[in-house]
Amino acid sequence: MQILRVNLTTNAVLYKDVPESWRAYGGRALVARFLLDEVPPTCEPLGPRNKLIWAPGLLVGHMLSSVDRISVGGKSPLTGGVKEANAGGTTGMKMAWLGLHALIIEGGPPADGSWKILYIDAEGARLEPAGDLVGLGLKETGERLTERYGSKIGISAIGPAGERLYRSAGVTHMDADLNLTRLSARGGLGAVMGSKHLKAIIFDQPRANRPPVVDEQRFKDASRAYLKILREHPQTGQIYPTYGTAGMVELCNAVGALPTRNFSAGRFEAADRISGEAIHDLNLARGGQIAHACMPGCIIKCSNIYFGPDGKPLVTPLEYETIGLMGSNLGIDDPDVIARMNDIANDMGMDTIDTGAALGVAAEVGLLAFGDGERALVLMEEVKTGTPLGRILGNGAALAGQVLGVTRVPVVKGQAISAYDPRGTKGTGVTYATSPQGADHTNGLTIRADVDHTDPKGKVELSRPAQLNMGGYDSLGVCLMGTFAFGVDPTLIPELVNGRYGWDMEPDYLQQLGLECIRMEREFNRRAGFTAADDRIPEWMTVEPLSPLNSVFDVPDEELDAIFDG
Amino acid sequence: MQILRVNLTTNAVLYKDVPESWRAYGGRALVARFLLDEVPPTCEPLGPRNKLIWAPGLLVGHMLSSVDRISVGGKSPLTGGVKEANAGGTTGMKMAWLGLHALIIEGGPPADGSWKILYIDAEGARLEPAGDLVGLGLKETGERLTERYGSKIGISAIGPAGERLYRSAGVTHMDADLNLTRLSARGGLGAVMGSKHLKAIIFDQPRANRPPVVDEQRFKDASRAYLKILREHPQTGQIYPTYGTAGMVELCNAVGALPTRNFSAGRFEAADRISGEAIHDLNLARGGQIAHACMPGCIIKCSNIYFGPDGKPLVTPLEYETIGLMGSNLGIDDPDVIARMNDIANDMGMDTIDTGAALGVAAEVGLLAFGDGERALVLMEEVKTGTPLGRILGNGAALAGQVLGVTRVPVVKGQAISAYDPRGTKGTGVTYATSPQGADHTNGLTIRADVDHTDPKGKVELSRPAQLNMGGYDSLGVCLMGTFAFGVDPTLIPELVNGRYGWDMEPDYLQQLGLECIRMEREFNRRAGFTAADDRIPEWMTVEPLSPLNSVFDVPDEELDAIFDG
Repeated sequence: MQILRVNLTTNAVLYKDVPESWRAYGGRALVARFLLDEVPPTCEPLGPRNKLIWAPGLLVGHMLSSVDRISVGGKSPLTGGVKEANAGGTTGMKMAWLGLHALIIEGGPPADGSWKILYIDAEGARLEPAGDLVGLGLKETGERLTERYGSKIGISAIGPAGERLYRSAGVTHMDADLNLTRLSARGGLGAVMGSKHLKAIIFDQPRANRPPVVDEQRFKDASRAYLKILREHPQTGQIYPTYGTAGMVELCNAVGALPTRNFSAGRFEAADRISGEAIHDLNLARGGQIAHACMPGCIIKCSNIYFGPDGKPLVTPLEYETIGLMGSNLGIDDPDVIARMNDIANDMGMDTIDTGAALGVAAEVGLLAFGDGERALVLMEEVKTGTPLGRILGNGAALAGQVLGVTRVPVVKGQAISAYDPRGTKGTGVTYATSPQGADHTNGLTIRADVDHTDPKGKVELSRPAQLNMGGYDSLGVCLMGTFAFGVDPTLIPELVNGRYGWDMEPDYLQQLGLECIRMEREFNRRAGFTAADDRIPEWMTVEPLSPLNSVFDVPDEELDAIFDG
Repeated sequence: MQILRVNLTTNAVLYKDVPESWRAYGGRALVARFLLDEVPPTCEPLGPRNKLIWAPGLLVGHMLSSVDRISVGGKSPLTGGVKEANAGGTTGMKMAWLGLHALIIEGGPPADGSWKILYIDAEGARLEPAGDLVGLGLKETGERLTERYGSKIGISAIGPAGERLYRSAGVTHMDADLNLTRLSARGGLGAVMGSKHLKAIIFDQPRANRPPVVDEQRFKDASRAYLKILREHPQTGQIYPTYGTAGMVELCNAVGALPTRNFSAGRFEAADRISGEAIHDLNLARGGQIAHACMPGCIIKCSNIYFGPDGKPLVTPLEYETIGLMGSNLGIDDPDVIARMNDIANDMGMDTIDTGAALGVAAEVGLLAFGDGERALVLMEEVKTGTPLGRILGNGAALAGQVLGVTRVPVVKGQAISAYDPRGTKGTGVTYATSPQGADHTNGLTIRADVDHTDPKGKVELSRPAQLNMGGYDSLGVCLMGTFAFGVDPTLIPELVNGRYGWDMEPDYLQQLGLECIRMEREFNRRAGFTAADDRIPEWMTVEPLSPLNSVFDVPDEELDAIFDG
């Protein structure tokens, strides 16, 4: 395995062996190690000193269900700190098959202002002109790239959001069906790619060139045991394949933590119109597809292809977070409207969480009436066109709040809170507050725990292991779906890693890796200027009770500050 | 002397004796002490937990030339840290005559969303409805208030910028001629006032009720000696009375530090068209007024009333910083255009420095062609109207850069650099970087020092005493103009203070007070989450040479970090 390094200023391409100190890390942990080693912590995130890294998780490349995720990382222009954003699609697998432990993008933009495509195959890597693709949405970008390079490639690309340096811009990866829709969504890494004038990366490796496995039997046994649990687990065997992540709508609404009308309530009176069940039935009636896989080999297939009223594909995937932030959070109960908003965001290549949250903030000053879907679509068109208002909204909730003079802004470290109100699920709130990544449910979601979610007691103890686990999983390439099975049998992760690498990791390997990852991330943030003052839920959520549970966020600061001690 | 405390939520008005621990402080130092004592450092600056303070300097109230300044302070919505913004006008004097050591505004906005006027006279204080004034510019606000309350009042008020929570909004004070144009400009304190729905404060005390002076003779002797030097000093005796602060244009251009086209050059080819000399001649030819005093008793009268081509008053005052940021920084060489932009900003009640810098940033993405004055006026009209683009620009350079995707943004701690490029005058650059207030020339300007301003050596040693002095002067109510005379005879400040209060301060009192002030400010910032990473000149200014001197900002970080040690 090698590290590929490409410099957009000098056009230099360099392959090197993986440094000794990087070998124990993949995915998210490698992002953190890389940032500490190579990126000046106080650098301008959209300037030439920032770098981007693509790092598959340590277990990627074997087409093991839900274990092929790619991490993209860099210093975030949204939070100003560490940022890792992982996604499905085929990028991680193709990179592993190309023998790449990581890809690092440096420098840029080219002195002549031109835009580039990075093409990588087994023979090497080279920069090519991207001229005709500049300004194109991701649908057309994907079509042109597969036309040009064939249909067996992997792609990471940015849309107009990244080109325009929107701080909600992500990096989009292609799925197994050539949809360029799997988003490393959060923290503005698409803007970093745009700042370097890199429009797309082609990973051309059709051959299933699996990375070496030191102990095949051990790896195979653990894989089999894992898949068996995955198939039998009620969540991954039945619920997610049927409803996808949208199945969360009813649960979160029942808990009382479903963001509603800019986080003013935790229950949405029309939740049943946008629930996983409702969308499932509507979509199937129209000929849409349930159980669509974003990664080859996935047996859960939590994704969907949502069809519009005309019986044609409207968007893929329609996920819970989008439904929460662009649906209930805006008082919108029409799945078609949410799907159309999602489609615009996908084509722009931007985070639906931060964009939905920004629209919620805009509603506070009357730019949108809650529930007015047509107006929300007009605002999304502004985002698409890049009008001043579109730029305000396209830069995420934190900036929108500052420009529009709104203080009821749902962000931590400048990143929008996802679709679990921290007052209604305080363990997740602790995760939002203390994760080095900024507010992000994927860093340690606690909603499935059988506890009183509004009681502040014990919520740091609930969040901490969840965060450590996710720090580990995100470093291995494991999807949230896979964590259901790995959680049932904790021996499987060490078994897989030991089989793959010939290591001798202990049973607590996952948590140790997660802790190490988070400590590196916190160290980068510290050097970038973060302090305990940044590990806080927004002040207004500590005083404004969430209807109907009448709960404020009241986990004590001292507990938050001690979460990663010891 | 008393502290008056007014709560906008409860309507409570409370007079109390000055706490023992506050008596040694006035103006800027009192702002810092107050913030440490009363304002939660991580609070939302535009939320109910932030507070505002009006604090005259310790020597205010005696109509001593250039020693009657008022400090307004609070947590800044622009920088997120400590903010003190002082100004001339009659507010400080009227407060001292009312026996007020400080006025503190708490809570707000009123539950019914109404806007208030705070009326204070010798009998007490009360909140009155401001209904008809909401939305009005400061000219009309001033007219209506003097109509209602008579012409012998002092006023502090906000314009539409403060009402709309623009982060460049200041608090405007009335001058001796009833112009509501003296601005506590920087850091968005007008937005804090707006967040509390306080439109104006009336200080109704026509009687020259001088604060007690313990040793009248000592105070009088020092005053006389001070005035003599002030009259005889070439700067305050001749240059400033003749050209006002605009006299700085030629000097700064000669040094090579005049911001030109968004800080891409330090010399402006048309500097002679916007210089103090040019404006002096033009203005006089039109019947305008040179040597206008902003404070009663001032013998320097560095202000002016700039007349337009129609022979009528266009704006007052037209200051150097405005000429630098709205003139050369935008490539604009027509004083009338600058004056019209200034007039809009004055009527809105907003900082011309951050607004001019925001327009320079907008020019980087083609929203304005450098030199296109008519387009600049159109943009100022957008700011006035409050369009989305106007909001982007009205929130200052830092936010404008983030929303517009520009990285060549001249800010420190989120506050725009004033009209001395830190690469061309590195001592001032050190001040920008390390002042707890954010980039601000008034916190320690070094351009008059006889040194090589592009040599990084010795610039921390140059900035430090300048910052300490200003920390002291700003706590005493001394105008920048007064510092020329006090600099000539350092015994005068302790003499005045000792005479006024019966204290026994040592010769180094000014610097000790300044150091104490800055240390309190840094402590507040530390608690608010600031670190050494915030004490930096923008990265791009450390790599992009300033034409024509070919200088980058290269004072070592370690020197910056040690400036207030020892």
